[in-house]
Amino acid sequence: MTSYDTRLELSVDSHRMFERIEALARINRLEDGSCCRLALTDADCAGRQLVMQWMQNAGLKIRIDQIGNIIGVRAGLRDAPPVMTGSHLDTVASGGAYDGVLGVVAGLEALERLNEAGLTTAKPLALSIFTNEEGARFQPDMMGSLVFAGGLPLEEALAATAEDGVSVADELQRTGFSGKAPCGELRPCAFVELHIEQGPILDREDVALGVVTDLQGISWRELSIRGAANHAGTTPMSMRSDAGYCAARTAVFVRELANRMGGSQVGTVGSIRLEPNLINVIPRLATVSVDLRNTQGALLASADRELDKFLKGLKESEGVEITSRRLVRTGPVVFDERVVAIIECVARDLSLPIRRMTSGAGHDAQMMARVCPSAMIFVPSRGGVSHSAKEFTEPVHLEAGANTLLQTMWRLAA
Amino acid sequence: MTSYDTRLELSVDSHRMFERIEALARINRLEDGSCCRLALTDADCAGRQLVMQWMQNAGLKIRIDQIGNIIGVRAGLRDAPPVMTGSHLDTVASGGAYDGVLGVVAGLEALERLNEAGLTTAKPLALSIFTNEEGARFQPDMMGSLVFAGGLPLEEALAATAEDGVSVADELQRTGFSGKAPCGELRPCAFVELHIEQGPILDREDVALGVVTDLQGISWRELSIRGAANHAGTTPMSMRSDAGYCAARTAVFVRELANRMGGSQVGTVGSIRLEPNLINVIPRLATVSVDLRNTQGALLASADRELDKFLKGLKESEGVEITSRRLVRTGPVVFDERVVAIIECVARDLSLPIRRMTSGAGHDAQMMARVCPSAMIFVPSRGGVSHSAKEFTEPVHLEAGANTLLQTMWRLAA
Repeated sequence: MTSYDTRLELSVDSHRMFERIEALARINRLEDGSCCRLALTDADCAGRQLVMQWMQNAGLKIRIDQIGNIIGVRAGLRDAPPVMTGSHLDTVASGGAYDGVLGVVAGLEALERLNEAGLTTAKPLALSIFTNEEGARFQPDMMGSLVFAGGLPLEEALAATAEDGVSVADELQRTGFSGKAPCGELRPCAFVELHIEQGPILDREDVALGVVTDLQGISWRELSIRGAANHAGTTPMSMRSDAGYCAARTAVFVRELANRMGGSQVGTVGSIRLEPNLINVIPRLATVSVDLRNTQGALLASADRELDKFLKGLKESEGVEITSRRLVRTGPVVFDERVVAIIECVARDLSLPIRRMTSGAGHDAQMMARVCPSAMIFVPSRGGVSHSAKEFTEPVHLEAGANTLLQTMWRLAA
Repeated sequence: MTSYDTRLELSVDSHRMFERIEALARINRLEDGSCCRLALTDADCAGRQLVMQWMQNAGLKIRIDQIGNIIGVRAGLRDAPPVMTGSHLDTVASGGAYDGVLGVVAGLEALERLNEAGLTTAKPLALSIFTNEEGARFQPDMMGSLVFAGGLPLEEALAATAEDGVSVADELQRTGFSGKAPCGELRPCAFVELHIEQGPILDREDVALGVVTDLQGISWRELSIRGAANHAGTTPMSMRSDAGYCAARTAVFVRELANRMGGSQVGTVGSIRLEPNLINVIPRLATVSVDLRNTQGALLASADRELDKFLKGLKESEGVEITSRRLVRTGPVVFDERVVAIIECVARDLSLPIRRMTSGAGHDAQMMARVCPSAMIFVPSRGGVSHSAKEFTEPVHLEAGANTLLQTMWRLAA
């Protein structure tokens, strides 16, 4: 495969790329500067229409599939499975300007620059905009890529409803994004996604690029802890069944577990709701979220078992009832070593510092890894912040990431 | 004082007393069976009007003071400071039928039965209905008795506003309970309050009566813990400033502190609010209530200091900012040993089991203890439950409490 060594003297039009990122950020930008394009709302669809216009102007052949994924194809010399890139345009309720958008806009840039250079790859190239990656309005997250990869029946995804009772099917119909193409029909030969890290590692280590070798497996649970509400003054300590105390013990346990296991294990209690949640009443009910992640499936399973063991003991010692509802359980994903190596090789050729890393966040690429060799390129997030108006990546890093994507696509498809 | 040994062959009309408790409970009873007479609402005032009617029918001379306390006086042989009993009629948003009401209705029963028996005491007797004991609508709680006892300037109490912006002064005007009598003008020579325990001790020990010898001092604080919101998957454990974890550590510390100190020390974290309170985001902000109580002022102060020390360490180890806002700080109250002894003596004469105990809840009697010898009589709360539709005291215990109050008033005033 000598084509891998083919240097392409071409780079992205960073000015155009920044303008496009800004144009998307201006759609329904909130007062605090954050972006609100919840999946399949008018704002999200305005973003989708805008990018589709750019894709059309770039001469891509566009198809929309039944879950609303938008796929633009640039023909190759051969009629073969395409090399695909892509990401998403939807945001959380107060998201940043780069999460998802960077991967779409930089992917378009790669295809468009090859047009402008009059270069054709052997294999076709494709750019995907996946529907509802965030999962902020419709569950599950990464919906479009999951359906594309055959991991979720189309009917189930279409039936998912937002809090206001509207379904994905309703919104696809309403907005005209209910496409005809069967999901996953266009099976790619490889997939590469450029994304901001959404974590602090590249920023703290001052490294321009990350190549993602794997994704953590995720275990999400919701615990309901039932104790007995009682007066905070009149109830002796020995006579309490305090759901709030049990919630607190659980959060402390989760931290200690992650510290004790080390390695890639992380654990978070991000949400605690107490009832009645009054200063002078022992809580009757606590609803507690637990988020456990590990890159190794066996270790994640072990962390889950340790939590169960802890909860059993807590139940007995504190006289509470505890039920655990599983919300999400995904196994770890290991990306394709060949694609990872190509990304590293590109970065070296471009003299860009790069490090291997694990993604702690979920991404469309992890779903695509089910159907083809895949990997991801990360660029730094300042302060590790995302899902916020403060989300920021230095322009020089945006450009480095986009150029790495362009070269990687070229090598995969040449 | 031979009058203390005077046996009075008289008991309350328990049928009438139960009917009155029931009549008050029917005012604005909610679907779940709980009572909603928040202070100075129409429902509360309907209860006040009803009891005032009974007081008038019983021939009491009624005065309403400037904070809306209703005081009915039954003349004695001498024009002297009265022996006073009383409690409150307001409830929390979903209160029980006995909290407060029992002390008012049983107090009226005592005065009325003496009328019916044609007996006159040497000293006058008085019955007080104190305004806004619960503090559920206007802060602080025990407002009427606190102003009566000179512990809070009238103007401050009148200026207290509910969440809807209405002030105590507004509501007293609107409901016609803005009285003319200066608060505390009628200084009693002694005060006794009958109340349900609102705790589990008498019920668990199956003792009919408690005589309250002291009340816990209370320290209430609200902690604001500021960390940094970050992605639960991508942020290594070592790089976190997790406000939720710090809230949990605090709740565990409060429990351990109370257990370690033992004695009368109790400690509760009843309220935790996290922001953004999402499963996959490390909490940025935690608002945490801490309720510490002890019957000994020095020990309570020591518990407060230990908490401060803990928070200082937490702040340093976890990289968070912590501010502590004091909401309530009351010293312990010790009741009058002479009044306590009379209550015990009465119970013995009535062959009613009685035990000395500490009140973990605040009561009007603790404010009255500032101006005259005071004590309280407790009757059991089934399961220790109060502030709930499930609040319940056996009729036989209600009757025992009321008869003990009647005899105690007689001995104090005879």
